[in-house]
Amino acid sequence: MQARHLVSIDDLSLDEIRELFRFADEFAADPRAHAGLCPGMIVASLFYEPSTRTRLSFESAMLRLGGGVLSAADMKVSSTSKGESLADTVRVVGGGYADAIVLRHSSEGAARLAAEYSPVPVINAGDGAHEHPTQTLCDLYNLHVERGDIKGLDVVLAGDLKYSRTVHSFAYALARFGANLVCVPQPGFEMPEYVLQRLREEFGVEPVRADARRLGSLAAKSDTMYLTPQKPHQLSLFTDARGWEVEHVDAVYMTRPQTERYRSEELSETAYLRLEKQALQADSLRDAVVMHPLPRRDEISEEIDSDPRSIYFKQAARGVPIRMAILGMLLGRLELEAPLAPRVRDVAAVVEGDNPCPNPSCISRTETRHVLPRVAVQRPSRPGQSLRAFCAYCSRELDFGFIGCSTTRHFHRPDSSDLGKMRTDHMVFLADRESAQAQGFSPAGPARSGEPV
Amino acid sequence: MQARHLVSIDDLSLDEIRELFRFADEFAADPRAHAGLCPGMIVASLFYEPSTRTRLSFESAMLRLGGGVLSAADMKVSSTSKGESLADTVRVVGGGYADAIVLRHSSEGAARLAAEYSPVPVINAGDGAHEHPTQTLCDLYNLHVERGDIKGLDVVLAGDLKYSRTVHSFAYALARFGANLVCVPQPGFEMPEYVLQRLREEFGVEPVRADARRLGSLAAKSDTMYLTPQKPHQLSLFTDARGWEVEHVDAVYMTRPQTERYRSEELSETAYLRLEKQALQADSLRDAVVMHPLPRRDEISEEIDSDPRSIYFKQAARGVPIRMAILGMLLGRLELEAPLAPRVRDVAAVVEGDNPCPNPSCISRTETRHVLPRVAVQRPSRPGQSLRAFCAYCSRELDFGFIGCSTTRHFHRPDSSDLGKMRTDHMVFLADRESAQAQGFSPAGPARSGEPV
Amino acid sequence: MQARHLVSIDDLSLDEIRELFRFADEFAADPRAHAGLCPGMIVASLFYEPSTRTRLSFESAMLRLGGGVLSAADMKVSSTSKGESLADTVRVVGGGYADAIVLRHSSEGAARLAAEYSPVPVINAGDGAHEHPTQTLCDLYNLHVERGDIKGLDVVLAGDLKYSRTVHSFAYALARFGANLVCVPQPGFEMPEYVLQRLREEFGVEPVRADARRLGSLAAKSDTMYLTPQKPHQLSLFTDARGWEVEHVDAVYMTRPQTERYRSEELSETAYLRLEKQALQADSLRDAVVMHPLPRRDEISEEIDSDPRSIYFKQAARGVPIRMAILGMLLGRLELEAPLAPRVRDVAAVVEGDNPCPNPSCISRTETRHVLPRVAVQRPSRPGQSLRAFCAYCSRELDFGFIGCSTTRHFHRPDSSDLGKMRTDHMVFLADRESAQAQGFSPAGPARSGEPV
Repeated sequence: MQARHLVSIDDLSLDEIRELFRFADEFAADPRAHAGLCPGMIVASLFYEPSTRTRLSFESAMLRLGGGVLSAADMKVSSTSKGESLADTVRVVGGGYADAIVLRHSSEGAARLAAEYSPVPVINAGDGAHEHPTQTLCDLYNLHVERGDIKGLDVVLAGDLKYSRTVHSFAYALARFGANLVCVPQPGFEMPEYVLQRLREEFGVEPVRADARRLGSLAAKSDTMYLTPQKPHQLSLFTDARGWEVEHVDAVYMTRPQTERYRSEELSETAYLRLEKQALQADSLRDAVVMHPLPRRDEISEEIDSDPRSIYFKQAARGVPIRMAILGMLLGRLELEAPLAPRVRDVAAVVEGDNPCPNPSCISRTETRHVLPRVAVQRPSRPGQSLRAFCAYCSRELDFGFIGCSTTRHFHRPDSSDLGKMRTDHMVFLADRESAQAQGFSPAGPARSGEPV
Repeated sequence: MQARHLVSIDDLSLDEIRELFRFADEFAADPRAHAGLCPGMIVASLFYEPSTRTRLSFESAMLRLGGGVLSAADMKVSSTSKGESLADTVRVVGGGYADAIVLRHSSEGAARLAAEYSPVPVINAGDGAHEHPTQTLCDLYNLHVERGDIKGLDVVLAGDLKYSRTVHSFAYALARFGANLVCVPQPGFEMPEYVLQRLREEFGVEPVRADARRLGSLAAKSDTMYLTPQKPHQLSLFTDARGWEVEHVDAVYMTRPQTERYRSEELSETAYLRLEKQALQADSLRDAVVMHPLPRRDEISEEIDSDPRSIYFKQAARGVPIRMAILGMLLGRLELEAPLAPRVRDVAAVVEGDNPCPNPSCISRTETRHVLPRVAVQRPSRPGQSLRAFCAYCSRELDFGFIGCSTTRHFHRPDSSDLGKMRTDHMVFLADRESAQAQGFSPAGPARSGEPV
Repeated sequence: MQARHLVSIDDLSLDEIRELFRFADEFAADPRAHAGLCPGMIVASLFYEPSTRTRLSFESAMLRLGGGVLSAADMKVSSTSKGESLADTVRVVGGGYADAIVLRHSSEGAARLAAEYSPVPVINAGDGAHEHPTQTLCDLYNLHVERGDIKGLDVVLAGDLKYSRTVHSFAYALARFGANLVCVPQPGFEMPEYVLQRLREEFGVEPVRADARRLGSLAAKSDTMYLTPQKPHQLSLFTDARGWEVEHVDAVYMTRPQTERYRSEELSETAYLRLEKQALQADSLRDAVVMHPLPRRDEISEEIDSDPRSIYFKQAARGVPIRMAILGMLLGRLELEAPLAPRVRDVAAVVEGDNPCPNPSCISRTETRHVLPRVAVQRPSRPGQSLRAFCAYCSRELDFGFIGCSTTRHFHRPDSSDLGKMRTDHMVFLADRESAQAQGFSPAGPARSGEPV
């Protein structure tokens, strides 16, 4: 039987996540009462970049479940020096040393690659700037504990909305659960267009201008935006020229500046947002919980640490029961009843040509052995739409002009209706007409006019 | 309920220490028979500087108690790089990952800071040159096992008595238990005045010259000194012009040169003391046990390793049962009957002005976030004595000229009887008259003569 | 009672190894069913050079046995910086922290030194280029599982046969079990003469030229050689001018280029051997299993990973049950019935002169404290043969001209019959006549002719 992995939060259906929450509730109620769940089982932490907090959180979860832990905090130094591929490493560790692998890696898509080869479950504990699904689960679980049903909650996302992986993943997950987002970006660090696009396309979320008067000083300098999965015509009933009015916030999710991701000049003129006592006095925040994925620097003043609304330390602590639930599920000791998450994209190996992934941090580019480039294809849901393709590892969207068929040797436009009949594993992604012809493809279409259809 | 911590050996009363010894005796008798004591509990080793021996000793103790271990041997690299404060780290780790924290840090006072924030017990496993209470406990425990009652024992402290933290802590603890100290320093590395002063003030220990003829070659080049908590008039019965005669030694505690703490020139001319076969033949050492906190370099010759008096490897091994006792107590699984150690000093936050701690290695200076400077005030026990103040983290004594009151805005001399009425948390420590007046204080006293009283 | 250690594969008799295989079979059948074997026991991994795979394999084995693990992945940094000797470290760790020590060290002979001092069993997890007995056991165990009786098997050793420690150890062990070796070296990386010599002297193995036609492309560029412990007169029945014909191979053991051991020029002209699909089609390999100690680089093509004959990932996985057996035996929880391996060489301390070991990587040269040079003496089995001597740590053969007696002060030739009467612990190994006389020895023999006998 194929092992089940947790590479992306999308690997879990909403119902599965809700079931995991229920297990986590049990674990949190009495963390030391569950050592009978995984005795004799072993989890290996393979950390190719240091992250003590995440590692200890997983290891604590496994110990609480009565299992054992193999800890490799410094894989980069020890293993890569001998030139072993990630694929071989997980085949060895998963082949007999451990019953599950927790993987942290600096390359995007590394966990997906590991999952392809590992005989035992792989849990993604962060792959570069890509995904960190248990962090997202932990954040969602905190909302569940503090607020109950996530659907319809109003959640402020504040700070660096441009570079923070954590906040993007959280935004998608909130939208999936039907929560509304109030974006309060650090000026210059607004939510990027590709995130907004995905929110729009997958969840029907449309941004509207937000009236942030009642958000107080926190939003004083930001262009605040409201993102809701509600239908626009409903929304229009409640908005006027000033935009949707923020009245009551359920949670403020603050993020630190991702200083490792940008040049310091970007932040030189405006100081970073800071959540302090005065900001929490805003009318709309009267019973909002304050969240932060930690570590924080100065973006949350310690003067609010003792405010009962500040839950960021509880939030971190709840990472243990939710990871206990994940481990228990993947190790086959917790039975979930919910159906699996449906697969939205077809994945196929790249049959011809170079690796089409343009991302230099993708594992398909950084790993020199045992990587077969793969694409994930999203077919149009309506006629006239274009087929889109993504790197199956790092999820970066591919940029291409035409699609060739490896058997017919014809090439087509991405919006061609002919693509409906082409098998995913026959697709060749071509930059332009010249490279198509150089690779031996001819234009498709009855007239062979030189213009593919 | 507030967690109990072990930051300093002074956090334990003598009776508590004796009870811990009894538990350690049980653990040592059959180390593998106690795995039922802490199952399901977790200790996190947070080591900001490497110390494999100490770390493994604690982790062994926890495993012997049936508990689990989270091990972070390299906190400096992993955590500090993300700019997280020590306070936040212990709040997260102690908030849900672990049931106790063992902390090793290069800054003095770090464990005290951690204990302020941690929801679970913090055990100081060495904070710079400050304290390492479980090492001291281990040393005392060895005396207890080898000699029974510590009171009245004659213990030679040999080697670097100037820079060795271990030997200072051990000296205070021995004095507290009523043992006598024979100081045999490496020439130039005599016991510092501030240590002698504390021994004198807290335990009434007065140094007398010692006649070291019967100590043999070990003391040949040293100015040997005898420190005893016995009353001086009793002592005088036994001393003459040559000083107290060393007749029978119970233990020799040898220390290595703390080469990391001084310039090599300090030791260039005289070679370091070396305990070898010949030295052990001294009459007074015929049944002295030889102790060393390890690691040793050349200060103990390997030729005496097999001498039954050499117990330094047993000494290290006994670190495990005594740490089992500490863990068992702090995790609430061993009930002690002895009353808690009384608190000698009042601790209060610094209400005005800069951090008064002059120690650049103090955590209050090295940590940039979440540190509130605090002072520990020792009020005079007799009229005419001065009030003294110490950094509450690193215990360094503060140097000040006057004390101001933050409410009356008057300032006083440290020996003023007015201080008896001033609350500790109102005290402002002032360098001199000028800075007092610059900070808005005026002299105290009925005449307002300009001279404070 | 003296602890038993596993420093060399020669520490185990063939019958003991066979018993360990039977225990490993049980463990492999149900790895999680044996947690009752070592509860309350602790193994310490002391790794002075990184080797995550080996470390995790041992730690997994101990966890599967229900025991605890102390992990020190970076001993070099933490311990050596304080100047502690290896001898002291193992006395401390083995004195009370752990019930067994797994040691990885960069110096040859380190595990032998550790075993001299440790109160608990030491397991050699690799000492420089010297030995790695559990790797060899794992390799043998795989043959046992895949092929049953090892005696009489034909095993191809391919690749770098010159620098690979692993392949030398495996070759000795195969010869000891009575298997035949087919050497297929990378050109220029042939099996060294000292290995062939030991195979000849200890096991009566004589190399013959091999006819490798039926080995196919794998052996196309190599001078293939057949090594068999069968009697040469039997062999001659089956060989002709082309040499012994390779007809049916039971296993191919592929090794990676030991690039850390030679200058890159050595491999610049010929590319390294590569085992790929085409090579596996050779007639003689039709049911050979393919083994590799891992990590691999390019010497095994990933296209054969899915071939059922490729067992290298299973091979690695089987390292866990065989290490469970080793740990269980050394911790005294598995009772073996087989007699101990006989000791072939006398070991004695060097009584005079400098350390005779010429190996700069030997622990007797790299360790500055607590090393007493020792020699292992192999006395001639027939008159006229010379006495040979080896460093007792790294096994390097000593080069000497004469042997002096520390009591008679005479010196003798290595083939002198007088040596039969000389005690091993009286032997002094002398480079030449001049140095013998400089050290105060005179020639032996009745005539005192100046020529020793």
